Amino acid sequence: MEKKLQTAVLGATGYAGAELARILLKHPRLTPPVLFAREGSDASIGSVAPNNGSALPDYEAFSWDAAQRADLLFLATPHETSWDLVPQARKRGIRVIDLSGAWRLMQENNRAIYNLPEQNGHAALLQQSVYGLPELHASAIASADLVANPGCYATSVILALAPLATAGLLDTSYGIVCDCKSGVSGAGKAPTQKTHFVEVADNLSAYSVFAHRHTGEILEQLGLQSKDIIFTPHLLPIPRGILSTIYVRLNSDSTAERVEQTFRTFYSTSRFVRIFPSPQLPQIQHSLRTNHCDIGMVLAPDRRRMVIVSCLDNLVKGAAGQAVQNMNLMFGWPEWEGLD
Amino acid sequence: MEKKLQTAVLGATGYAGAELARILLKHPRLTPPVLFAREGSDASIGSVAPNNGSALPDYEAFSWDAAQRADLLFLATPHETSWDLVPQARKRGIRVIDLSGAWRLMQENNRAIYNLPEQNGHAALLQQSVYGLPELHASAIASADLVANPGCYATSVILALAPLATAGLLDTSYGIVCDCKSGVSGAGKAPTQKTHFVEVADNLSAYSVFAHRHTGEILEQLGLQSKDIIFTPHLLPIPRGILSTIYVRLNSDSTAERVEQTFRTFYSTSRFVRIFPSPQLPQIQHSLRTNHCDIGMVLAPDRRRMVIVSCLDNLVKGAAGQAVQNMNLMFGWPEWEGLD
Amino acid sequence: MEKKLQTAVLGATGYAGAELARILLKHPRLTPPVLFAREGSDASIGSVAPNNGSALPDYEAFSWDAAQRADLLFLATPHETSWDLVPQARKRGIRVIDLSGAWRLMQENNRAIYNLPEQNGHAALLQQSVYGLPELHASAIASADLVANPGCYATSVILALAPLATAGLLDTSYGIVCDCKSGVSGAGKAPTQKTHFVEVADNLSAYSVFAHRHTGEILEQLGLQSKDIIFTPHLLPIPRGILSTIYVRLNSDSTAERVEQTFRTFYSTSRFVRIFPSPQLPQIQHSLRTNHCDIGMVLAPDRRRMVIVSCLDNLVKGAAGQAVQNMNLMFGWPEWEGLD
Amino acid sequence: MEKKLQTAVLGATGYAGAELARILLKHPRLTPPVLFAREGSDASIGSVAPNNGSALPDYEAFSWDAAQRADLLFLATPHETSWDLVPQARKRGIRVIDLSGAWRLMQENNRAIYNLPEQNGHAALLQQSVYGLPELHASAIASADLVANPGCYATSVILALAPLATAGLLDTSYGIVCDCKSGVSGAGKAPTQKTHFVEVADNLSAYSVFAHRHTGEILEQLGLQSKDIIFTPHLLPIPRGILSTIYVRLNSDSTAERVEQTFRTFYSTSRFVRIFPSPQLPQIQHSLRTNHCDIGMVLAPDRRRMVIVSCLDNLVKGAAGQAVQNMNLMFGWPEWEGLD
Repeated sequence: MEKKLQTAVLGATGYAGAELARILLKHPRLTPPVLFAREGSDASIGSVAPNNGSALPDYEAFSWDAAQRADLLFLATPHETSWDLVPQARKRGIRVIDLSGAWRLMQENNRAIYNLPEQNGHAALLQQSVYGLPELHASAIASADLVANPGCYATSVILALAPLATAGLLDTSYGIVCDCKSGVSGAGKAPTQKTHFVEVADNLSAYSVFAHRHTGEILEQLGLQSKDIIFTPHLLPIPRGILSTIYVRLNSDSTAERVEQTFRTFYSTSRFVRIFPSPQLPQIQHSLRTNHCDIGMVLAPDRRRMVIVSCLDNLVKGAAGQAVQNMNLMFGWPEWEGLD
Repeated sequence: MEKKLQTAVLGATGYAGAELARILLKHPRLTPPVLFAREGSDASIGSVAPNNGSALPDYEAFSWDAAQRADLLFLATPHETSWDLVPQARKRGIRVIDLSGAWRLMQENNRAIYNLPEQNGHAALLQQSVYGLPELHASAIASADLVANPGCYATSVILALAPLATAGLLDTSYGIVCDCKSGVSGAGKAPTQKTHFVEVADNLSAYSVFAHRHTGEILEQLGLQSKDIIFTPHLLPIPRGILSTIYVRLNSDSTAERVEQTFRTFYSTSRFVRIFPSPQLPQIQHSLRTNHCDIGMVLAPDRRRMVIVSCLDNLVKGAAGQAVQNMNLMFGWPEWEGLD
Repeated sequence: MEKKLQTAVLGATGYAGAELARILLKHPRLTPPVLFAREGSDASIGSVAPNNGSALPDYEAFSWDAAQRADLLFLATPHETSWDLVPQARKRGIRVIDLSGAWRLMQENNRAIYNLPEQNGHAALLQQSVYGLPELHASAIASADLVANPGCYATSVILALAPLATAGLLDTSYGIVCDCKSGVSGAGKAPTQKTHFVEVADNLSAYSVFAHRHTGEILEQLGLQSKDIIFTPHLLPIPRGILSTIYVRLNSDSTAERVEQTFRTFYSTSRFVRIFPSPQLPQIQHSLRTNHCDIGMVLAPDRRRMVIVSCLDNLVKGAAGQAVQNMNLMFGWPEWEGLD
Repeated sequence: MEKKLQTAVLGATGYAGAELARILLKHPRLTPPVLFAREGSDASIGSVAPNNGSALPDYEAFSWDAAQRADLLFLATPHETSWDLVPQARKRGIRVIDLSGAWRLMQENNRAIYNLPEQNGHAALLQQSVYGLPELHASAIASADLVANPGCYATSVILALAPLATAGLLDTSYGIVCDCKSGVSGAGKAPTQKTHFVEVADNLSAYSVFAHRHTGEILEQLGLQSKDIIFTPHLLPIPRGILSTIYVRLNSDSTAERVEQTFRTFYSTSRFVRIFPSPQLPQIQHSLRTNHCDIGMVLAPDRRRMVIVSCLDNLVKGAAGQAVQNMNLMFGWPEWEGLD
């Protein structure tokens, strides 16, 4: 049997990091991951499973010596931290999958939307970074040393639009509307007034209208401009899951069958994208705790306007699961290893 | 002191009917309402408060004799029932507020969307029916004998668009998108797989895409055509409340201040519409258990595209509260009596 | 018409304080309350209702001069703050209703359970404090200058046991078990890991077993000793509401009718306690947003063992509503004024 | 490689049956299960996953011919159906795991509590039935042809009490109190008023006080009498999970360490029972979607009274997972196969 590889996770105490640690722990090609706590963190995942069973390893203090022993380093850290650490990791020859937004965006205006630092000395490294959406960039990911794992909202929207954009079927002159709704784990584990149970329960709210930092990824990956699209996130009173309702107009008359077929063809080799037979639509429950992105669509009687619904689990296909999918590609393993 | 009037409610066992009964019971101008159970219903609201306190009156079997003793009859019945009963009530001279969709729509194509019966012999009566949105039709409501109480989604969308539509500021050629989300009580009290706790909790789903029966009201009230607007409802995992996120384009450049002022002017005498200072947006919690419709807006940097968020409680401003507001107008009382 | 009185609330930014402010604002005997923010607090209730309508007054910085202008001062502050402020208020002749635990307990061992300071110089003042449970101490409250408003759990348990304890029907030798469950607002508004939506949703947890600080109130009010009773609180995934399931044994055989009658007699003049006809049991929804405490009971076939279920809204009967009920008694108004 | 075995499930459309089907589908020793729909059922699990991926097989109409081809038949049917079908299955030599209550109880009084039919002609077969709690009856299960899978509440309570009962440490004369709380899936998939989202959300209710049908299993398995124990179930506003808070008294003074050690020793070979270090207590989230039963305990300062908290997922360890654990024992496979 093949020798098992070693991974390390920095920032495994947040929701995405802990989900990642759990997936890595059961991955058949890996020894248990080294878990580095973020500085100042006192949470202990292990406490959840205090007895026998599949408890996670204890956290270690981060050191480059320890990180260097890993075949792959995952960063589940704030983008400022990732922007600092990735160059040091690459200098040491460590391959990295970064779950923050720091290395996702090439264009300065989009980096500005995200409030990312200017490229300065890291422009060359940024050019080598690959946007880790396997359904679009599988071969580049396979040979990458630095993968920028996509944002959860961005994954949901890009996968819903890529087949039509690629086929040149979108009429963007009317404006694409992406009305997206996410569970609370997308807001992170730090307790804030915004994530207090009493503020979220029995409620729904829109936020960051015309200003959400995931917008840049959507534009850059789909080759769109800011005027072409509106993206509005909402906070749902559920722990996890994203549903994006996307309104587009086709540039010529079509049928539901033909549009659906465009999606099926585009994703014919994509195990983790499930196309629903129109007019059936996915719900958030369908993809929870899986690495699937579920997509359904309805065409208006005018044969031009279309509603696309795209669902995924923000912690899995929107973060940790997608990171593992990227890892699988980087090491030449089947894309679904450890994810089924 | 003025003599108190008598109301009656048919169908007070559903969620909207029970909410209505509770409001009527505390209304200072009314004696306790007569409550008629829908045939076959066995629910008893009274059982909730078995001892002293503000328990509702017991249900009675419906009869026209009993109904005729009321100064006003509320129908919280399916639209088929309302279509049958209203002509009989009017023949007896009873004033009616109907909470179903049966009497809301004049245009045949919109009636068809709702799956309403053809007008046949009732065309004349339908012409006398007034759409019960007090912010738009206060004076017609005041003198009406038959008020068709609006749908909950429709109220939320129409109030959010009326100021711009009336001022002629909307550019409908790009298409208006209404992405609406409602709590489960909007689906009624009858237990179905769709309203089962396990199916709704931790979930979100879109439904009736391009096909929801409230669409006709929106079109008819705003003078729009089907091609101008998309309305997509979603089922939220909360008991009550609606949030509508509405995407429009103005037909000339504007500023947030100017648009906000258009709304404030339009609703200057409307106690139940609250305009939030842009870019602040209402959340569902803000208007729960009140008769308010809260509206906020954000203008894009391009000064043309706009996101409007409109929230209300589907059982109050979206049903029972609005019905009482209509009653207040019909009897010349202050609009907010019994609703503050 | 009688001159309206002035109240003031210190700490109106927390959940109980805000609920109190809303009730006071609508109370027919009062002018709008003066709201003092807790130091360092930046929350603004007013922002919820930015337009017309029943918005709360703005917060003011606290000063004794301003407080002294009020006919009654409510403290919704941590018990350490209340312990410091109450003596100063009384020295200035200000009547006080304190919502913290600081002045509820006379016995040192019970004060120790709550982790309250030693009595030191305040022993005399503590003796004058009246435990603000109107169903037990109405006349003492009426003449009190310092009322210690009870804890939410304690209210729920004491009201469920008082009729049997007073009638001498309890056999405490078997041990009374109080298994209590509360919504999250009981844990306060400060965001913590424990109140993070993702930690609470889809979950239930017991806490402070054999160690909850409300235990002392229960013992002291019912004349019990620590060995007689176990009180276990649980955190429910709901915003508000308490349900206590209480297991007792009678000291002689009885019938459901007789026991129920004992409760009905005991509470015959208590408008806010509703006794359910056995074996019907209250649910949390029944008393939400009301000042009721609902009580139901089932007697075992052995005619000795009994389960009592007691429900209330922790922010109303468990805090703000009860405080207003106490105020009504202190000023000789009907107990239910402003609470119906 | 070993030949894979064939299983069949009757009633795979309910929550427990669907959970079972999903576990069986991924079990490494099995070919995909044959799924028989209950008569009249129209639900289709497969519709959830309409595209590629791990969709379940289509449902088949039930026939004994088809059932007989399976190496093991699971019945997820009402107890009346199971009572009828099991004798026929055994006559045909088919091994059965029955998830209903029909074959769990030997004693007539306990069968009466459950409202089970009298034994009549099936007494001999009932004697052969083994109560499928692997932690207590592993060797009997291994050789059984008919396993009666335990109830969810009963599993939670029995596992929490068995170590103390077996060691003779319980003083039952004071009465054991089991205050149990369950998520809504425990009430089944059929939509009823009781499971309507609006009735359950923001609520909690106790039910079947002194009368729940799982009581008999608890008594029979622990050798207790009705007078020794009270079991009160509550309906939680969550989809799944059980937390039981259990109050017992020891018959001699002890320490937390000693009691905890009694539990650890008792379950030293039980992979699916996790003992928490006292005074740490399990929460419902800890065991969701796993086959674990988590148990924690706190001893009172008097060294006699004890609170035990026991958590499990009602659809996994409380139903489908436990059924698979039983299957593993029946076929001599590792107990955790397909369950980790």
